[in-house]
Parts: sequence; C-alpha cells; structure tokens
Amino acid sequence: MKRIYNPSLDEIEQLCIRPTQDDREIKNMVERVFQDVERYGLRAIKRYATKFDGCSDVAVLTKFEILQTSRSIDVTIKKAIDVAYSRIYAFQKKSVQTNLERVTEDGITCWIEQRAIDKVGLYVPRNLVSSVLMLGVPAQLAGSKDVALYTPPNCDALSAICYAATLCKIEKIVLLGGAQAIAAMTFGTDLTPRVNKILGPGNSYVNYAKILAQNKGIAIDMPAGPSEVMVLADGSAIPSFVASDLLSQAEHGPDSQVMLVTTSELVADTVQEEIQIQTENLMRKENINKTLINSAVVVVESMHAAIMIANEYAPEHIILSVENPEEVASKIQNAGSVFLGNYSPESAGDYASGTNHTLPTGGLAKVYSGVSVSSFQKTISFQSLTRGGLDVIGKTIETLAEVEGLDAHANAVRRRMQVEEQNEV
Amino acid sequence: MKRIYNPSLDEIEQLCIRPTQDDREIKNMVERVFQDVERYGLRAIKRYATKFDGCSDVAVLTKFEILQTSRSIDVTIKKAIDVAYSRIYAFQKKSVQTNLERVTEDGITCWIEQRAIDKVGLYVPRNLVSSVLMLGVPAQLAGSKDVALYTPPNCDALSAICYAATLCKIEKIVLLGGAQAIAAMTFGTDLTPRVNKILGPGNSYVNYAKILAQNKGIAIDMPAGPSEVMVLADGSAIPSFVASDLLSQAEHGPDSQVMLVTTSELVADTVQEEIQIQTENLMRKENINKTLINSAVVVVESMHAAIMIANEYAPEHIILSVENPEEVASKIQNAGSVFLGNYSPESAGDYASGTNHTLPTGGLAKVYSGVSVSSFQKTISFQSLTRGGLDVIGKTIETLAEVEGLDAHANAVRRRMQVEEQNEV
Repeated sequence: MKRIYNPSLDEIEQLCIRPTQDDREIKNMVERVFQDVERYGLRAIKRYATKFDGCSDVAVLTKFEILQTSRSIDVTIKKAIDVAYSRIYAFQKKSVQTNLERVTEDGITCWIEQRAIDKVGLYVPRNLVSSVLMLGVPAQLAGSKDVALYTPPNCDALSAICYAATLCKIEKIVLLGGAQAIAAMTFGTDLTPRVNKILGPGNSYVNYAKILAQNKGIAIDMPAGPSEVMVLADGSAIPSFVASDLLSQAEHGPDSQVMLVTTSELVADTVQEEIQIQTENLMRKENINKTLINSAVVVVESMHAAIMIANEYAPEHIILSVENPEEVASKIQNAGSVFLGNYSPESAGDYASGTNHTLPTGGLAKVYSGVSVSSFQKTISFQSLTRGGLDVIGKTIETLAEVEGLDAHANAVRRRMQVEEQNEV
Repeated sequence: MKRIYNPSLDEIEQLCIRPTQDDREIKNMVERVFQDVERYGLRAIKRYATKFDGCSDVAVLTKFEILQTSRSIDVTIKKAIDVAYSRIYAFQKKSVQTNLERVTEDGITCWIEQRAIDKVGLYVPRNLVSSVLMLGVPAQLAGSKDVALYTPPNCDALSAICYAATLCKIEKIVLLGGAQAIAAMTFGTDLTPRVNKILGPGNSYVNYAKILAQNKGIAIDMPAGPSEVMVLADGSAIPSFVASDLLSQAEHGPDSQVMLVTTSELVADTVQEEIQIQTENLMRKENINKTLINSAVVVVESMHAAIMIANEYAPEHIILSVENPEEVASKIQNAGSVFLGNYSPESAGDYASGTNHTLPTGGLAKVYSGVSVSSFQKTISFQSLTRGGLDVIGKTIETLAEVEGLDAHANAVRRRMQVEEQNEV
C-alpha cells in the first residue's frame, strides 16, 4: 500500500480513480454472447455454458427440486442461514416505505402508491449464499411475482443456495452463470421469459452484460464494479481490527481496492505491520497482495479532511474506527453502507446485520442506492379532481398550455369547465 | 384509429408494441455528437449549436441574469406559474420519504438515511416551462447542490422559464439543447462540470443521448420515449371529455400513441365522432392526424379485461372514466400516473395538480417510477454493533464466510470475538 500525506485536491482526484481497467477483450466477448443469444437463443446459451462451465445442458430447478436439494444442507450452515435470513428480513421489512397519505386541498386529491415489479431476474455468483438472501428477501417483501434466480453450475454450495431460496420463496433456479445468464434474462428463452429487471452482483463479464441488458430496455439495480472499503481511523482505532477489515475486502480479487484514511501516523504504521502479519495466515494471499498494490494509506491532519476525502471517493463500504462514530457518520454524504465503531466489521453487513450488501461501487454511491425493497417496486401517482377542484387550477393549466403552444391540452380543461357546476355529471 | 374487439392474448401483445422506430440515422448522429464533444469539448458543442439551432455561442445565465430575465414575464403567466409551483411544491413535499427509525435488537442497530444527489443536470425542452417546475421543485426539496438547467436557445418563453427557475432556486441556466446539451453534461466543459445525474424529458435525440450518457457512468431518471395516454371508459364516460383527453396527448407528435379501451361500443362510436369534430378547431391538426393512425380503440366485454390490457400496456398516463374509479385504480398495477373520474384530465397532472409529469413511457411503467424527490436522493445504510451484538451474529458470519470461501471475512469477526467482553475497548 502506498502512503500519501495530506493530499492536495488534485491528488484526491487521483486517489478517487479506481484501479479497474476498461477491458476491451471482456467487452468484445460479452457483446458476442449477447449477439449470439439474441440470434440463436438457447442453442447459443448451451454452447457458452459448455465453453465456460463445462456444462452442455442447463438445469432449471423447480420449486420441488429446490426443496429436495435444500434437504442435504449441513445443519450448522442451515442454522447460520436461518439467523441471517431472520435478521435481514426483520430489518428490510422495517425499511419498507409505506404508502404516504393522500393530500386533499380545494377538491384536488393526489397520492402516491408503491407497486411490486414482477418478472425479476436475480443473479447470484457461484457459491454466494448470502447474495440469495440479499436479493431474495427484498423481492419477497415487495411481493414480486415471477422471480427467477440464475447462478452458475458446478456450485459447491448448491444445497445452501437452495435452502436460502426456499426461505425467500423463490420457485425457480436456473443453473447458468456469466454473461450468458444475463443474456438469457434479457432476451427470454425456454428457460425463463424476458425479465423486467435484473439485480445482483457479478464479475466484470456479468457487470458489462448488465449494461448491455440495460441498453435493451431492461432495468438493472445499478452498474457495478469491483468491491471496495475505506476505513476512517483516528488514534482510538484498534490496528489489528482495521487490518482485518482491509484484508477482508482485499481477498475479493485483484481489482478490488482498500483505503485507510487516518489522522494518526502511528495507526497507519501499525495497521500496515498488522496487515503483513495477518496475511500470512489467510487463504487468498495472492488476491490480497495484488489488491494491496492498488491500495493506499492516506495520513491527514484532521478528521474534517478525512471526511472530505471519503465524500469525494464515495466508497461502497466505509468503516468509522473513530472516537465519535455517530458524529462522523452524520457527515458522510456519499457511501453505500457505513459501519460505526470498533465492533462493526464490514463482514457484519456482508452477512447478517440486516442491511443489504448489494451496494454501489466505483464512486457511484454519489448517485445510486444499495438494493432494498424499493429496488423491487415502482411508484404510481394518482389524482382525483372534483368539478370544483378543476376550477381552482383550470385557468393555470390553460395559461401554461398556451405558453407551451399546446392548445389541445387547454381544450381538455376548457371543455370541462364549460359544464355548469350544478350540472356536474 | 383502428377498432379492435375483444383482443386475444396475442393481439394484446401486438397492441403493446409502441409505434416508435429504431431510427439508425438519429442514433448515428447522436453518437457522432458524443464522440466529438468527448474529443473537442466546447468547440464541438458550439459547432453543433450553430448547425442545429443557428447559435454560434452558448449563453450561460447566472443567478443574477436569470432574475433579470424573469422580470419581463407577463403578469398572467407569472400568476399561473405561481399557482402551479405552489401546488407542485406542496404535494411533492408531502411525498418526501422521511428517514425511517433506527432498529435496535440484541446490540445491533441498523438504519437507513436519505442524502441529496449533488451535481445534477436538468434538461428542459424548448418553451416547456412546466418541466422546469417538475424537475426543479423535487431538486429543491431534496436539497441538491450544483443544479444546472439546460434548455435550447431561441426560446419564446425564456422569461417564463427563468421565472420558474428562480422559484426553484436554480442558479445556472445554459442555453443549449439537443444531444449536444446531454453530451456537455456528460463530459463536463467550461459551461458546467460533469454531472452525476441527468433528468428531464426530450425528443428522440435527447432520449438516445441520455442512454449514451448512462453508458458513460452518468445516472439518468429513466429511458424515455414518446408520450402516451390510455383511457378506460365504461358507459358513464362523457365522450367529449374522453375525446379531448385523447387529443391532448395526440398533439404531442406523430410518434405518440393514444388508446381508448371501453366496455361500451356506443362510447367508442361517439368518442370517435367527437375526435373528428374537435380536431377541426385545434392548432396541431397535422400531429394529431398522424398520431391517430398509430392509435386504437379497443372494445372489450368487461372492465376486468380492460384492466388486464392496461396492466399489459403499462401506459404513461391512464384516465379512468368509469363509474367506480377508486375501485379500478386499486387494480392498476403498471402505469406512470392515474387520473380518476370525469374531472381529472391528463392536463391537470401535466401542469398543476401537484403530481409529476416526468413519467415512464413505452411500457417501462412496469419497472420505473416517475420523477419525485427521491429521484434526487440516494439512500445510505448504517450499522452499529456493540461487542455483545457481534457475539449474537459472529458465528453466523463465520459459517457463511466459510461456505463462500472467504476466510479473511471470517477473520475480521473472529479477531474481534477473541477480545474478552469485559476488556471491550
């Protein structure tokens, strides 16, 4: 990890550029998959499944088969999924935006209601049981119909994935991964019909495939990139914890990024030593070491400067290992999920605190939200005017329609206002 | 308008295909604009402004100039804008989702907060004063900073646009329209810096430009297409009102579509006669006649069938000219905005009822919402665990992390759980 001291505005801008590369080869491959699936459908899908996953057929598990498969789950894993499910369910349920009250004034009543999005495709990367819950629970709470879950074949954790799916009442699992899975959801095949929205994390192939799906008129949860974490630390931080958090993100893959921004040079030094020590005992050393090359420790003079950097960087995850985490949290403007204090590691949110782990990356936290129940809903507005209500705004509508040169708009109002109020139909 | 009786499922599917064309010429042009603006910046922008709008320079109005320009507004128009602003402001304010309560259980506290999206670009088509309000009011209520409004030059209604902008506290107006305006917001120029999100309606050039902006990492309100309305009518409908509503949408442009779905053949006949009569006195006859060719009257046997067709079609606007509009409204699953009863013309929502007129078109109401305050916000999730709280879910996290093969995730928890509770730091 490179060390940077009190970066200038230009240096902060540089720090905010993520290590991801614009990989033309990946894009070409994904574009080819899309073209082929659009043209040849299931035949192309099977060819790519064979090529990438050694699977010449695509299994579609029905409700019954999902239940059957879930039965072979290990009891400890089952218990862990139960705990995670119930916490995620409880919190996501409380975060549901209820329909707001109707507003009536002068005979004009307006209101907004939520409705579920139906025909939804969930993408779950190989073995990521937690992503089944993070997508399945909000879909279940929104009441989305026709939910299909795609996940790669040859998955070690299939019984766990199926068990999580049964909890979320998912009734269809397609064992197909990668860009070909996203293409299948986009164009619709005999596996599942075309979906309205695709949600879920993935690798660079999947993420670019979601962009292509979006260009074909399918909504997506958000454009996604490699995972990242930023830790803000002052002298009260516990270096071994901070190191363990940076490492838990670094193990994801070589294009991830981890950032430590601290007001304490001592913390910076000790965390870097701890990283070296802890890495020795971790399985994914290779990923970790590659990630650390792209990562940085930034030493600043004040928490104010640290917060400014955080808001510019807009991290997917931010851990506040500081004396007054609440105060710092209130100043975080751009982030996916915030972890307060020494006992809130990122892993807690990844699996079981109750918040969602499908979060905006690459600085998109400035504008996108993580997945929630509302990702599976849209809103509809309603208005109901009485004859008297139309009188109140009729002239306004006529005038503005005329300014805009739209006289048929004015006519629709004028015609109704000609009816005498007592003759109201 | 063609007449269709009791369409089959296949015929309904056909009905739902919008008349928009995939215009390669428009796409090529917009792609060229984007390439040139990316490469040559302001120089390319000025060249396109000259070519398309005969304007060799691009004016940027400051707060003071907006105020100055707004002073020449006609008093009637000013009053109309005041009324529309206050109604839109009042309703949009009441539709703001407040931050939900924190949820604490077993030492684990989670919550969600809204934060404004800053650096926002609003696009307002030439003379569309109402769109200034429909975009500016929610931006103002969200508290977005750095809001820039782009609208074409040579605009008759500039004083009105400026007046509406002052009400919404918009401090920068750029007189630039079309794809070149969207490209300017996407890449950032001396006119305004790169924005995080672009919102607002537009013609086919603007709409495709927003798709290209999205591919460059800019969020957009929604992919948009030509405007459309569907009227559901039973025997209680007033044919002259229904005709005026269909015509108010038809005047928008030749690629718009208007649909009447009715249980009464008499209503169908009378509405079609009324359309002929009313069209004679309207300014935009040519647009209207072209739109009507692409439009249809569907006669069905029951309101149940009508609602089914509406939900498949997912209209931008739907007017319920029926005896029990509340009951029918509760069954509308897919629509942008719903207008209940005989005195709620679409024009009311277009200008002044209080709801937003920036709505999903082309069937996207199945998955997208109209613009609202939340279009200018994102949510952040927070979690704060005590040492005891981590104990409650620690084992769960470890187990799931192991299933997923992520041992550094498990390590981050294990390390904290090794600290004796009494020694909590």
